[in-house]
Amino acid sequence: MQKYFISEEQLANKIIDNDDVFHITSVMRSKIDDQILVSDGNKTYLVKISSLSNKMVSFEIIKEEAGNNEMPVFVTIFQGYPKGDKMEDIIKHGTELGAYEFYPVMMKRSIVKIDEKKKQSKLDRFNKIAKEAAEQSYRDRLPKVVDILNLKQIDFSSYDYKILCYEEVAKEKEDSNFKNIVKKLKKNDKVAVVIGPEGGIDKDEVSYLMNLGFIPCALGPRILRTETAPFYVLSSISYEMELK
Amino acid sequence: MQKYFISEEQLANKIIDNDDVFHITSVMRSKIDDQILVSDGNKTYLVKISSLSNKMVSFEIIKEEAGNNEMPVFVTIFQGYPKGDKMEDIIKHGTELGAYEFYPVMMKRSIVKIDEKKKQSKLDRFNKIAKEAAEQSYRDRLPKVVDILNLKQIDFSSYDYKILCYEEVAKEKEDSNFKNIVKKLKKNDKVAVVIGPEGGIDKDEVSYLMNLGFIPCALGPRILRTETAPFYVLSSISYEMELK
Repeated sequence: MQKYFISEEQLANKIIDNDDVFHITSVMRSKIDDQILVSDGNKTYLVKISSLSNKMVSFEIIKEEAGNNEMPVFVTIFQGYPKGDKMEDIIKHGTELGAYEFYPVMMKRSIVKIDEKKKQSKLDRFNKIAKEAAEQSYRDRLPKVVDILNLKQIDFSSYDYKILCYEEVAKEKEDSNFKNIVKKLKKNDKVAVVIGPEGGIDKDEVSYLMNLGFIPCALGPRILRTETAPFYVLSSISYEMELK
Repeated sequence: MQKYFISEEQLANKIIDNDDVFHITSVMRSKIDDQILVSDGNKTYLVKISSLSNKMVSFEIIKEEAGNNEMPVFVTIFQGYPKGDKMEDIIKHGTELGAYEFYPVMMKRSIVKIDEKKKQSKLDRFNKIAKEAAEQSYRDRLPKVVDILNLKQIDFSSYDYKILCYEEVAKEKEDSNFKNIVKKLKKNDKVAVVIGPEGGIDKDEVSYLMNLGFIPCALGPRILRTETAPFYVLSSISYEMELK
């Protein structure tokens, strides 16, 4: 059953009046009395469509759905800003794999420059991708792409565990730091994961992060591309905590 | 250090005379006496460049390198042929994540049609992507994209474990089959992983595979896209078997 993330206001008014109307009416060809799932990002409801037009869908709530598709821990991906459309892919697949939120991070070796004027439109586009991926993957919660920041603007003090994905330790055959952390995770822990851009993390950035308590981790013996590392991290945490 | 997969013949003659010459001379700007790694897909050697031209690089072997970047099990990805360039992404990232080999599979819900004439050029392109990803990720072995087949043309009889990634059991909250299999894996086991295309696996195909001994598995509680499923499988196996 198709799920739509809507605003708190839309939920209070029991209407959908944004881009999703087109999806509901023209893509899914829904009719009156059809059931869909709606969520305000906190709670999910099974609802019945009560009226349809090309501008608005109104609905009645049937019942609250027990949401249990969320990771037991909150994993925030701090992704060194990569080239091309890799950030979109990371947000899309990272959302499916259960990431809590994303910060694209401008690092020393990030090649792309984002000026302040374009930042908001980039964030809007990233959040739209997260919304679509969250709906498609049956997330209960809508992950946010919070902000595009420089590394030193980020406050990492509230995280319980701090993982630095670092290919140089993979080359030295480090093979236990990541799993040691994942094995310790308990429900509701907050996990910060920092991943460098294509050229890797600069040594000064590594020192800075290690001083803040980050643990340099290898993700297996092979050298992963920047866009593959978040998939490894999220998949492994899901495998460890969500499968029996 | 840059690694190049070369043919057995090139290794015997201690020359490189294909596209890699451009990479060695113009991209990496290597000079005489520079060291590179070469592998025939079985063994890896540290070599020293002894001559360079724009058509050929010759080298002397310094020593054999101990390869230990390969997964302890052989995971073959049977991927329902997806749309667009997703197959390329699956081969690229799947190679980094340690896949042994790939078969793009035409399934009932595959939308793309590949005619016999185009098949070989597709396979050549896929294998080129695998080679580049294997070099970049420090693989010891070059994974192959073996063939594009219909599901019923494939002989699954030689596999020790048969995993069917099936989103319908994820919706029913199945949460133990995949991990049960991964926990049982021993060194050199052969693992077949079947993943449906975008529309999922048809019920007849599910029955066919289950009759062949495939176990339907959910990859966590969320519904993954076809191109995300192989990353989850390979990452989890690496996490379980390669990290301590």
